[in-house]
Amino acid sequence: MSTASPAPAPTATTDRHIVFTLGCPDTTGIVAKLSAFIASHGGWITEAGYFTDPDSGWFFTRQAVRAESLDASVEELREQFAELAAELGEGTRWRIWDTARRKSAVLLVSKEGHCLHDLLGRVAQNDYPMDIKAVIGNHEDLREVAENHGVPFFHVPFPKDAVGKRKAFDEVAQLVNSYEPDAIVLARFMQILPPDLCEMWSGRAINIHHSFLPSFMGARPYHQAYKRGVKLIGATCHYATQDLDDGPIIEQDVIRITHKETPEDMQRIGRDAEKNVLARGLRFHLEDRVQVYGNRTVIFD
Amino acid sequence: MSTASPAPAPTATTDRHIVFTLGCPDTTGIVAKLSAFIASHGGWITEAGYFTDPDSGWFFTRQAVRAESLDASVEELREQFAELAAELGEGTRWRIWDTARRKSAVLLVSKEGHCLHDLLGRVAQNDYPMDIKAVIGNHEDLREVAENHGVPFFHVPFPKDAVGKRKAFDEVAQLVNSYEPDAIVLARFMQILPPDLCEMWSGRAINIHHSFLPSFMGARPYHQAYKRGVKLIGATCHYATQDLDDGPIIEQDVIRITHKETPEDMQRIGRDAEKNVLARGLRFHLEDRVQVYGNRTVIFD
Amino acid sequence: MSTASPAPAPTATTDRHIVFTLGCPDTTGIVAKLSAFIASHGGWITEAGYFTDPDSGWFFTRQAVRAESLDASVEELREQFAELAAELGEGTRWRIWDTARRKSAVLLVSKEGHCLHDLLGRVAQNDYPMDIKAVIGNHEDLREVAENHGVPFFHVPFPKDAVGKRKAFDEVAQLVNSYEPDAIVLARFMQILPPDLCEMWSGRAINIHHSFLPSFMGARPYHQAYKRGVKLIGATCHYATQDLDDGPIIEQDVIRITHKETPEDMQRIGRDAEKNVLARGLRFHLEDRVQVYGNRTVIFD
Amino acid sequence: MSTASPAPAPTATTDRHIVFTLGCPDTTGIVAKLSAFIASHGGWITEAGYFTDPDSGWFFTRQAVRAESLDASVEELREQFAELAAELGEGTRWRIWDTARRKSAVLLVSKEGHCLHDLLGRVAQNDYPMDIKAVIGNHEDLREVAENHGVPFFHVPFPKDAVGKRKAFDEVAQLVNSYEPDAIVLARFMQILPPDLCEMWSGRAINIHHSFLPSFMGARPYHQAYKRGVKLIGATCHYATQDLDDGPIIEQDVIRITHKETPEDMQRIGRDAEKNVLARGLRFHLEDRVQVYGNRTVIFD
Repeated sequence: MSTASPAPAPTATTDRHIVFTLGCPDTTGIVAKLSAFIASHGGWITEAGYFTDPDSGWFFTRQAVRAESLDASVEELREQFAELAAELGEGTRWRIWDTARRKSAVLLVSKEGHCLHDLLGRVAQNDYPMDIKAVIGNHEDLREVAENHGVPFFHVPFPKDAVGKRKAFDEVAQLVNSYEPDAIVLARFMQILPPDLCEMWSGRAINIHHSFLPSFMGARPYHQAYKRGVKLIGATCHYATQDLDDGPIIEQDVIRITHKETPEDMQRIGRDAEKNVLARGLRFHLEDRVQVYGNRTVIFD
Repeated sequence: MSTASPAPAPTATTDRHIVFTLGCPDTTGIVAKLSAFIASHGGWITEAGYFTDPDSGWFFTRQAVRAESLDASVEELREQFAELAAELGEGTRWRIWDTARRKSAVLLVSKEGHCLHDLLGRVAQNDYPMDIKAVIGNHEDLREVAENHGVPFFHVPFPKDAVGKRKAFDEVAQLVNSYEPDAIVLARFMQILPPDLCEMWSGRAINIHHSFLPSFMGARPYHQAYKRGVKLIGATCHYATQDLDDGPIIEQDVIRITHKETPEDMQRIGRDAEKNVLARGLRFHLEDRVQVYGNRTVIFD
Repeated sequence: MSTASPAPAPTATTDRHIVFTLGCPDTTGIVAKLSAFIASHGGWITEAGYFTDPDSGWFFTRQAVRAESLDASVEELREQFAELAAELGEGTRWRIWDTARRKSAVLLVSKEGHCLHDLLGRVAQNDYPMDIKAVIGNHEDLREVAENHGVPFFHVPFPKDAVGKRKAFDEVAQLVNSYEPDAIVLARFMQILPPDLCEMWSGRAINIHHSFLPSFMGARPYHQAYKRGVKLIGATCHYATQDLDDGPIIEQDVIRITHKETPEDMQRIGRDAEKNVLARGLRFHLEDRVQVYGNRTVIFD
Repeated sequence: MSTASPAPAPTATTDRHIVFTLGCPDTTGIVAKLSAFIASHGGWITEAGYFTDPDSGWFFTRQAVRAESLDASVEELREQFAELAAELGEGTRWRIWDTARRKSAVLLVSKEGHCLHDLLGRVAQNDYPMDIKAVIGNHEDLREVAENHGVPFFHVPFPKDAVGKRKAFDEVAQLVNSYEPDAIVLARFMQILPPDLCEMWSGRAINIHHSFLPSFMGARPYHQAYKRGVKLIGATCHYATQDLDDGPIIEQDVIRITHKETPEDMQRIGRDAEKNVLARGLRFHLEDRVQVYGNRTVIFD
């Protein structure tokens, strides 16, 4: 088995960052506390985003600090930060991520390969922050595409009956979980995740839907779009939840069409929106730029 | 009463065009017939668009011919074209428009003035193919805006009771019809046209809706968009029909937003999409570039 | 003289903000110091942007704080902040702006009115953070447009000879300076500012150029664009400097065109880009969202 | 050697088209003549584009006719059309293309693989009208990428000395010509074609430049863009001519950036523009949608 993917370049020390993300009830002085904490460890902040949601009164931040500027290990930082976080309000969530730990993903696919080709190509040219651990298909079609990039491919057939389908999902879940991936990417996977898997992979399962949601939810969105006569078609990258096509939106985009495009033309043209939107949205996720609150997302780009 | 609108420049002969539009069942040789007809009158075609809808098998064309190249008057052309059209299939529709006849519009408004300001500004700087005959408001707010441009303003109050509202619509209809306008523009008019007016003004009543339809139909679309957490907001210019926000779409566009935008921010930002989309869509209509079939539009831009 | 502009709504206390902006050499702990300062006054930060330029090692921030949360007056804050800033490196620049003080602008125009119409319309509908103090034209054409909005118009004719032109600029400068405006907007003003005025109004004079700079600098950019056969035309909002069309860029955008568009079509279509780009760029400036370093700008949007 | 590319689906008869393209001096009646010609053979036109360039007085058209509707072979059509064309003015150019003949391409690459990955992916998922006959690289880096898709890869090293470089170009030319390709695609090939190859491949050699031309011609456009502080970066697909980066533009697009992006970020982000613009522009070329006049292109999309 050959591979077209070069080994990822070793991350240069100057580029290694410790990324702090925090979501908590807003009160005066949070920024000051967090800044003092980072400063007390000599942290050189290179990127900082802040947002307070006026409706919920919830505060969010993401800060990237040069790893070499910090005088403590990630473990020490986490330990100490936990104390700081304990003083913040109920429901506070935080993460500290060392970019030296490369994120991992498992991709679920069906027959259409454009998103798979695109993500494999990005990883191969070494400009995407992700290792693809495995590709799982409910059809055999895309095996060679994955294997040519040195990525294991697993074929899990999906029967039409409920029992068979459930068994197939259990097999998929077992495979996925064996990799403990940071992202489970539904890269035009044509099966609807059952509620328990949505729950288990909450905040990690990312879907690309081939419409500008909330328009054209469900099946055959390009045919719906054609019928309605819209002048733009779109794609939406969102977290998969139990409410089909209704999860928190990470990224969207549109492409202009005209009366000349048939539903088949739209499918072809729309693929460019799908793969670009998925690539952008997934990158936000992998770089810890996304925080979910209710059905909305903060994106610190 | 002063006016900021300069008189429209006289249309130069070289710029005067006769515009042919035709929609009919498609058969072999239609283009040849039409082309032969135009050529037989010495017509110099400067712009030509063709489209066949594969679903309905319907053919559409729009052709702009230099007026000075033609050896017949518009009346003569119409008379002769009627004979040609009679040989085409049932339901055939056609128009021959002399661009020397400037199109006219009546604008219906409420309190928000951005679309009104924009259209008045375009007409004032003499680069929009339309005379605004009158502005009708269900509030007094925009009277001065219209009158400062030398355009008559009529205030027709809309009571909340059904009978009063109906009377108000009758008054609006009478006012509108007195101008025989080519376009009735609902420039953020906050009242829903009753079915009989939609019918009477079919293909002439143009609405701007402040969302990317079919997302967020009905009231308060920006609040709906905020709630859903979309990453793009939009606007849709469409023909008003009896099915609210469901008429044939002429033009759409979107603007990127982030988690930071409140519904109020979206309203402000969205105004730019609204006025630009309305201006583009209305121009298509005024220049006879739109043909409706079913709930879809052909736009010969 | 009538006016279509409603009086600006009184700013609600909850919306009043104190905006801190700071640019200084980057060192560890700046964010902590600034945050501690704001927190020490009870400041509730609603918006915060940070950026460190890796090339120059310069740090920039903009923070919006709810006015009602602060326990000190703007004057007191400025006094105390000056002490903090004195400890930062050489060249440190900072401002503290109370949004209750509405920003002011003087507009310079020539014959084309689309940017003027657009800005007047925005102010009239009360969603733009600016008072237009005066409009100065080197032609009479746009007098009525300004006066209909209740804005004084001054006609300063520009002779072709150098001495006459210089005198005209002196008159313009005197008029402009009498208003002490926060922005001098060259809203399609067709005269090139002399170096001393660029210097005097440095960081306040804002130009809209009708191309996607650095393409098509200088005269007749749409004709240049036509000749080159580009598929997109654009507009650029930038600070006016002594190097014509080469000042720091605030905002840009493009519009798609095809082979069908003549230079005249491009001029018409491009106006939409020009007015929208100017309106967005100018808003960034008025809301203290822009910081210039070298020939680049940080935009905290 | 394995291949991930499925065999191209056989073109269905209903989808097979005969495409007529014509460019000639404009006179009255050309459309009529051409339409009559097509109609006389029973031709069912499904797509038709027309354009007259007002400056040069040159007429262009592209018409797609259902192959099954025509009563003559392509050879017969060509023979008869030649007679018709002979009556048109000097310099008349025309082509008749049977879409059953799939277009072919040879790709020239260097080290960056994103355009190659993208085009191979499109061909593999069978939605791109092209066979890739060979990939030629001046480095070995992308051999596996090509070969994994079953496409032959040739490594032609480019020495730095003029004589060696010339020899390398001769070898490239011989390889390319052996395939008689419809398109020679410079897919981020980092060598400048010598004038004689530009001449030999005139109208067939297509380059993707990583800037929004005419901005930032020549080397390191993203670094130039960074230095100028632009707010949008772009890509341009154009025919290669002897004037570097100055050939007729087929397609362009831009992506928004901010002050945060370094030149390295721009390179990464810009790749999406590059590959999408190349894919769109190359498709126009392959589908005979492009006609060149002077330094401009008509695109019948």
